[in-house]
Amino acid sequence: MATTDRIVITDVSPRDGLQNQAIHVSTDDKLELVRRLAAAGVPSVEVTSFVSPKAVPQMADAADLVPRLNSALPGLQTSALVPNLKGLERAHAAGAREIAVVLSATRTMNERNINMDLDAATEVSERTLIEARRLGLRTRAYVAVAFECPFEGDVPLDVVLRLSGRMQAAGADRIVIADTIGAAAPGAVKIRMNELVASIGADRLAVHFHDTRGLGAANAWAALEAGIRHFDASVGGIGGCPFAPGAAGNLATEDLVLMAERSGFATGIDLRGLLDAVAFAESVLGRPLGGRSIAWLRRHYAKEAERNREAA
Amino acid sequence: MATTDRIVITDVSPRDGLQNQAIHVSTDDKLELVRRLAAAGVPSVEVTSFVSPKAVPQMADAADLVPRLNSALPGLQTSALVPNLKGLERAHAAGAREIAVVLSATRTMNERNINMDLDAATEVSERTLIEARRLGLRTRAYVAVAFECPFEGDVPLDVVLRLSGRMQAAGADRIVIADTIGAAAPGAVKIRMNELVASIGADRLAVHFHDTRGLGAANAWAALEAGIRHFDASVGGIGGCPFAPGAAGNLATEDLVLMAERSGFATGIDLRGLLDAVAFAESVLGRPLGGRSIAWLRRHYAKEAERNREAA
Repeated sequence: MATTDRIVITDVSPRDGLQNQAIHVSTDDKLELVRRLAAAGVPSVEVTSFVSPKAVPQMADAADLVPRLNSALPGLQTSALVPNLKGLERAHAAGAREIAVVLSATRTMNERNINMDLDAATEVSERTLIEARRLGLRTRAYVAVAFECPFEGDVPLDVVLRLSGRMQAAGADRIVIADTIGAAAPGAVKIRMNELVASIGADRLAVHFHDTRGLGAANAWAALEAGIRHFDASVGGIGGCPFAPGAAGNLATEDLVLMAERSGFATGIDLRGLLDAVAFAESVLGRPLGGRSIAWLRRHYAKEAERNREAA
Repeated sequence: MATTDRIVITDVSPRDGLQNQAIHVSTDDKLELVRRLAAAGVPSVEVTSFVSPKAVPQMADAADLVPRLNSALPGLQTSALVPNLKGLERAHAAGAREIAVVLSATRTMNERNINMDLDAATEVSERTLIEARRLGLRTRAYVAVAFECPFEGDVPLDVVLRLSGRMQAAGADRIVIADTIGAAAPGAVKIRMNELVASIGADRLAVHFHDTRGLGAANAWAALEAGIRHFDASVGGIGGCPFAPGAAGNLATEDLVLMAERSGFATGIDLRGLLDAVAFAESVLGRPLGGRSIAWLRRHYAKEAERNREAA
């Protein structure tokens, strides 16, 4: 393991993290959250989604947020989720430079989510990717419920391979293999990511884990070992349903950074800066946040600050 | 990965988990905890330690507990920690069939813990192992602070290799590589365990992780990938210092079982049985316990029980 190996983390807290939160978050507060992530060195942020404001009221300010972010943080790579060509049109009009489409890997999940069968959903994603590239935008394509579906159970690997191949053929710059319900274990991650890397190439792939069962970091390690270098994560582990006690959100960015940096991978991200972003998100959402390492990180940097004060 | 791969878990909650607890736990309650672990299918339990009752009051009943366990659970593999020949003598007189010695990998840790330098500490462990084998007992040898020492920082790998080799030469049936302060990350686990497996053999090795930084499961996965099949864990993640908020104990047995079983490794352990042991430990210690998966496990098995009631 070379100590110069680099991984790229996309923080999805403003989108995946906030979309189900009960408390309405203002555009100003979203801007401040993204500003703190950028200040911590996070290179890439999924900032919003251009979905129906009726379906996801928290994302109703997408067309306001994107131009304000472009102007405030011109150097940050930001992306916006779009469900279809109409969403893409709105995102492009707002100045988005990177978009993401979401394709669920099972029939039932697509029917429940967007009232389409798997073929129709795949075609919508393909058409949206092709049009986005025609417009000169960078693209991400999520393959959602790529491990287990809440309705259909285990998702066959060959389906994930086939859908990922179609997203690749449609020109997706990166295909994000998503464990949407946090059901994956590292054994399955190893098998699936090895096959996907062989078929698609590690450079075109990313992974997106939820920490529902406390295995997010272990899954990320299995993906690293399979050669994956692009990861989604959410600062503070924000996400999940705030009404379900113990329902965890995404793998926390701070957990991933801690694991990766201590294992010889460079992330470019400062953990103290992430703690600052977590503190801000806590003040906005009015509840304790943080990944599995948060208690240790806070103790560690509090002690370090104390030593620095004593030495000064 | 063959689905018949088997791992062996030693639950250390009655020893490592309880030794620092503020609440005194009765011998009856310890028996009941071990009984529930055995009922869940846990094959091996570290039940107590024959140390000075002044140093560790919680373990003062070791000479009572061991014979009662031998009589109540004759089929369970149990071990007892002994600090030296005197502890071994007491353990043997009480009927212990397996003992464990602890050798810290740094000078300072040994000085602080047992007021010996590294050479003297190594010799004590060696002599204790040799005598234990002469008495016909099975033996475990911990190499403690095998990743990072709270006083000396990173511990050189060659020291860990050398001390492990000496424990092997003294006849230890298993050498337990212990991340005593929970500082390891999977990158270091991979490097160290690969070297140790090459030098000592996977069969003679075990790992013992603490979950202080939320990386316990990821570390266990890295050890599995290095070929390790023997693991310590503590039901409910019991351990750590109850006075330090957020200070985690050992990697929780339920987290390890969940990760391993879902990754194609057989443990022989029933997760519902572990939840039952966690509930009992909570009632004894009077505070919430549980590893990183506990909220999900409880929801999962509550739903399953509901479905079974509806189907009945």
